[in-house]
Formats: sequence, C-alpha cells, structure tokens
Amino acid sequence: MTKPPVTVVGLGSMGSALASAFLTAGHPTTVWNRTASKADPLVAQGARRAGTVEDAVRASPLIIACLTTYEDTVAALAPAALTGRALVTLNSGSPAGARRMAAWADERGARFLDGAIKNVPSAVGAPDTLLYYGGDKTVFDEHLDTLRVLGGDTVHLGEDTDLAALYETAVGGTLLPALIGFFQGAALLRSRGLEAETLLPYATKWFEMIISVLPMYTKEIDSGDYSGPAASVDIFHAGAAADLELAGEGVDVGWQLPMHDLVRRAAEAGHGDRSIAVLTELLSVGATGSSTTAKHPSRRADRP
Amino acid sequence: MTKPPVTVVGLGSMGSALASAFLTAGHPTTVWNRTASKADPLVAQGARRAGTVEDAVRASPLIIACLTTYEDTVAALAPAALTGRALVTLNSGSPAGARRMAAWADERGARFLDGAIKNVPSAVGAPDTLLYYGGDKTVFDEHLDTLRVLGGDTVHLGEDTDLAALYETAVGGTLLPALIGFFQGAALLRSRGLEAETLLPYATKWFEMIISVLPMYTKEIDSGDYSGPAASVDIFHAGAAADLELAGEGVDVGWQLPMHDLVRRAAEAGHGDRSIAVLTELLSVGATGSSTTAKHPSRRADRP
Ligand SMILES: NC(=O)c1ccc[n+]([C@@H]2O[C@H](COP(=O)([O-])OP(=O)(O)OC[C@H]3O[C@@H](n4cnc5c(N)ncnc54)[C@H](OP(=O)(O)O)[C@@H]3O)[C@@H](O)[C@H]2O)c1
Ligand SMILES: NC(=O)c1ccc[n+]([C@@H]2O[C@H](COP(=O)([O-])OP(=O)(O)OC[C@H]3O[C@@H](n4cnc5c(N)ncnc54)[C@H](OP(=O)(O)O)[C@@H]3O)[C@@H](O)[C@H]2O)c1
Repeated sequence: MTKPPVTVVGLGSMGSALASAFLTAGHPTTVWNRTASKADPLVAQGARRAGTVEDAVRASPLIIACLTTYEDTVAALAPAALTGRALVTLNSGSPAGARRMAAWADERGARFLDGAIKNVPSAVGAPDTLLYYGGDKTVFDEHLDTLRVLGGDTVHLGEDTDLAALYETAVGGTLLPALIGFFQGAALLRSRGLEAETLLPYATKWFEMIISVLPMYTKEIDSGDYSGPAASVDIFHAGAAADLELAGEGVDVGWQLPMHDLVRRAAEAGHGDRSIAVLTELLSVGATGSSTTAKHPSRRADRP
Repeated sequence: MTKPPVTVVGLGSMGSALASAFLTAGHPTTVWNRTASKADPLVAQGARRAGTVEDAVRASPLIIACLTTYEDTVAALAPAALTGRALVTLNSGSPAGARRMAAWADERGARFLDGAIKNVPSAVGAPDTLLYYGGDKTVFDEHLDTLRVLGGDTVHLGEDTDLAALYETAVGGTLLPALIGFFQGAALLRSRGLEAETLLPYATKWFEMIISVLPMYTKEIDSGDYSGPAASVDIFHAGAAADLELAGEGVDVGWQLPMHDLVRRAAEAGHGDRSIAVLTELLSVGATGSSTTAKHPSRRADRP
C-alpha cells in the first residue's frame, strides 16, 4: 500500500526530525526551509525539495509546519494557497497565539490542527513519544496513521484549537519554579563549600515524591473538597518562616515572597486547615466552563 | 545477642513509627510523650512507659527525640539529665534551628546528632528509606546498627550539626514552587471547564523530564562552566512573555514575577546565551567555604 504524501515546512532541529521520520516510514515527503541548505540531508534521504513554499504546499494535502513561533509560521506560509489543505502546526506557543494562528488559517481556507511535541527531536518516531493536538477532529482522524509516525502516543484533546498550547502551558508552568528551587538549594550548599552534585540523590527522591502526591491533589481540586489534607495550608504557612531564615545562610530568597504571600492569603481566608491544593482556587481569576470540550479531553479511543 | 536499649521521646505520628520499628527489631524501648495516652499502643507492643521525661532519659544511653520543632524538644527535655547521653533529634527545622539545638545540647553535656527522615511514618524501617544525619560521628558510628533499624539508607553527612537541616532545606525548597506551578496549570484548565485530573499523565512525564536534566545542571554549577547550554537564559527570558499572556486566560500569574525578574537580571548581566543554571550564581549572596565538611559529605562507606 502506498503511503499518503506529506509536506514539512521548517527544517530546524525539530522539523528535520519530523521529515526524517516520515521518510523512514515510507511517506513521499516534500520539504521546504527558508535557508534551503537545511534540506540537503533530507534530500539525500529521499525527500523532494520544493523550490518555493507555494510549491511545497501544492505538493501534499497534509502540511506539517514546525517553525519557531506562530508568527514565523504565518510569515512563511503567507504566499501559499492553503484552501482545502490540512495544516498542522507543531511549534510551541501560548493558547492566545494558537487561537490567532487558527483564525488566520481559517481565513485562508485551511483545515487546521495545532499540536505540541512533548519531547526532543531524537525521540520523534518512538512508540511512547507523546504528541497532542487540538482542533479539527476530521483532520486528525483522516491523517491519524500519518501523524502516528511522529510518536506512538498521539492524542486528540478536543475541537478547541488552543488545547495543545493550553496543556503545554499548564504542564510547563512548573519548570522554571522547580528549577529555581533546585538552584537555590545548590546555592545554599555552595555557601558551605558543598557541591551541588551531592544534592542529586536526595532531589531525585524528592521529585519522585512530588509526582506521587499529584493524583491526591487533582482529586481534591476536581471535587472541590479540600478537607482532611495530607499537607495543610497552615503547615506551609509555618514553613515559610523557616524558608526565610535561609536569607541568613547565603542565599537570596526574594523570589519566594509572592508564593508565601499566596499561602498567607489562603490562611487568612480561613483555609488554614484545608489542603494546600486550595491555592488553585486563589489562582483562578477567570470564569469556568467556556470550553466546547468535554471535561476529559483525551479520550482513550483516540490513542493507539 | 541482646539489642541495645533505646528511648523515644515524642510519640506523634512519626515518633510512634520510630518506637514501633525499634520494638519490632527487638530493642528494649522506653517511651515518653507529653500526652501519655499516645504511648498505649506501644506499651501493648512491649514498650516500657516512662512516667517522666527524666525517667525516660535515664533508661537508655541513646535518646531519639521526634517532636514538632527544636524549641519543643528543648522545652520537653529541659528537666532531664543529659550528661553523657547520645541525643538524636529527628524533627524538621532550619539549619539555624539545628545549630541552636546543638549549642543547647552541648551546654547540657549531651553528645548530639541531628537527623532528618525523608519519608512518611509508614515507610520507617523499610530498606530504602532515607535518613541523613549531621553532627558527632562517634555517636553515629556507635549506634549505627540501631539507627539503621529506622531505614536502610542511613547516611552521615558530616560533623556539622546543621547538615541534615541544610540538605533538608536545600531539597525541600522545590516543593512549594513546583506545587504552585502545578496548581496554576489546574486553574488554567479549570478556566476552560477541564478537570485537573487530565493534566496528570502529562505532568508526570514532565517532572520525570525535570529529574532527568538535574545531573546536567549540577555539572554546570559545580564546574562553573555554563557555556553550551541545553536551555539558555534567553530561552527562559523569551518564555516569560508567553507565561504572562496567561493573565488573559483566567489565572493569577503574579507569583511568577520575581522569577521572571531573576531571569531578566541574568540576561542583563550578560548571561543570555549561558545555561539557565547560571541563576545559581545570582541566588548566591553569601561567602563560600565556611564548612568543616568535605565537598562530598555523604561517603559511600557510611551507607549500608
Ligand atoms: N528542539 C526541541 O527540542 C523542541 C521540542 C519541542 C518543541 N519544539 C518547538 O518546535 C519549534 C521549532 O523548534 P526547533 O528546535 O526546530 O527550532 P530551530 O532549530 O531554531 O528551527 C527553527 C525553524 O524555524 C524557521 N523559521 C523561523 N523563523 C522563520 C521565518 N520568519 N520564516 C521562515 N522560517 C522561519 C527556521 O528557518 P531557518 O533555518 O531559515 O532559520 C528553522 O527552520 C519551536 O517552537 C520549538 O519550541 C522544539
Ligand atoms: N509525619 C510525617 O510525615 C513526617 C515526615 C518527616 C518528618 N516529620 C517531622 O517529624 C516531626 C514530628 O512530626 P509528627 O508527624 O510526628 O508530628 P505530630 O504527630 O504532630 O506529633 C508532634 C509530637 O510533638 C510533641 N510535642 C510538640 N510540642 C511539644 C512540647 N512543647 N512539649 C512536649 N511535646 C511536644 C507532641 O506531643 P503531644 O502528643 O503531647 O501533643 C507529639 O508527640 C516534625 O518536625 C515533622 O516535620 C514528619
């Protein structure tokens, strides 16, 4: 059986990995990149080089774009005729950026799906590599076999085009805070002439512990029942004082202050003996339920 | 062979688990708690109940105290004659608190070791349960077989009495930031009527990714070589703008501002193309090398 053709636009580290995976899987693959030379290794692997982005888009019913931002994607695709094409973007960005991209694609007559790759280029094509998508489900269903070439764990989150960016942002929001917490620990050890490396076995166990308590917290958040906590607001409130004592140990703790303030406000609002997960309520300032999506966007049936 | 006797002072959730582990291992175990009734289940298990804290301390050469804070420990032990006793505290607290506790124990003629249990009461006694200690190494060596009853992964970090509290604080500093990041993600989903539970598989993979990059960061921190980064300051600096766009998605992002400020200051100081781990340098405000401890406090030889 011949595989359906696909076009990859944007051949940076990630775009090149995507195109290479399609070639390996036997898809006729057309490639285009602003800096044309980046296509050379893919052409050597059997890809068809498009001279212009117009040609590239004309070559296949399915266009995969992986440029730096949504804005770059719009700029690069501007000359091409997108009417009737299935356009899939795989760059990182904000939910608002994804919505702007979707509106532009819609205007141009494209059928649009926005996705995110939760991994590095070298993991593209592996059975447990996760990619999730939001947007036109008919595009997802029609091209599922092709999309699965990029990773075995391929999920459609729902019809809202910003869902991949939304989950991406929701998940990614722990990275900088967790890293700064770890760097502060390293700075604390350094103030005593101790190496950061000695923290590794303990920090690893600690993050594993954090992973293990997340299901408990999501249960509390989804039920709205924060009573009977394993770790109360008061416990974190009391801990804040000890955290600040670290200012005397050679580290700058200023970055923590608004977090302590959040905990203090929770205690003052009468949540002291409730679970720390109640902070979710304080962090929510928007309205609920504007989604057209079900409460569980990832349906098992969408998974391989 | 008869096991050496041990006294446990403080029978809250953790102290009771400690005493129970000693009883199970066959140590003659004397117990005392301010609220006497908490000793009942342990007495039923074979413990000897001390009528006063003076009696409790007199009963064994090794005293394990597990009260809420160092201050509570000092208050509870005040009437007892500690001269020549080995005193081991296992509560949580700050490095400064541990140093104050050590000074008090020293004044009272006790030989002192401060430890921390990196786990929950139900894990006490398990082969991979981690406890680390700082302080008098002769106490650690003399009572190692007894201390190992509490957890197979028992480590002496060094002679400084605040080392357990120091590592405890260094490791623990990621918890609140990581959780708030996760709660923000849950709030973001909620603003769309989506359940926090749908975040779990993705957040789990994400934290596993964070664990996997820590060794790279400690190498950079310990060598002071932040060139050739996998994730640069500039990348996080650019990401800050997308993070703030979330203010339009129904979540309060104010708690992130000083973190972005830290990243911005790193970029302005010329670290833009260096690894994000360079933030360790900005978080360090103290002098280096005041420890009497080697750079690697946990020597393999101390481990079972
Ligand atoms: N690499 C990863 O580990 C990874 C993982 C997950 C997600 N992502 C996301 O995937 C996307 C691409 O990442 P990458 O690592 O492949 O980046 P990259 O190596 O820097 O490549 C960027 C690509 O975008 C193109 N581009 C940028 N601006 C353009 C414009 N105005 N017009 C035309 N082409 C333009 C570049 O073309 P030129 O070659 O002509 O400059 C290049 O092909 C990003 O959103 C990234 O966040 C990356
Ligand atoms: N539970 C855990 O998961 C865990 C894990 C690691 C570390 N820790 C640490 O272990 C320590 C104890 O925790 P826990 O969970 O056992 O706490 P807990 O159940 O609240 O017990 C606290 C104990 O301290 C005693 N106490 C407090 N103030 C006292 C005072 N002024 N005089 C005499 N006794 C006093 C209490 O006596 P009464 O019964 O008379 O009130 C009780 O025995 C804490 O520092 C905690 O951070 C706990």
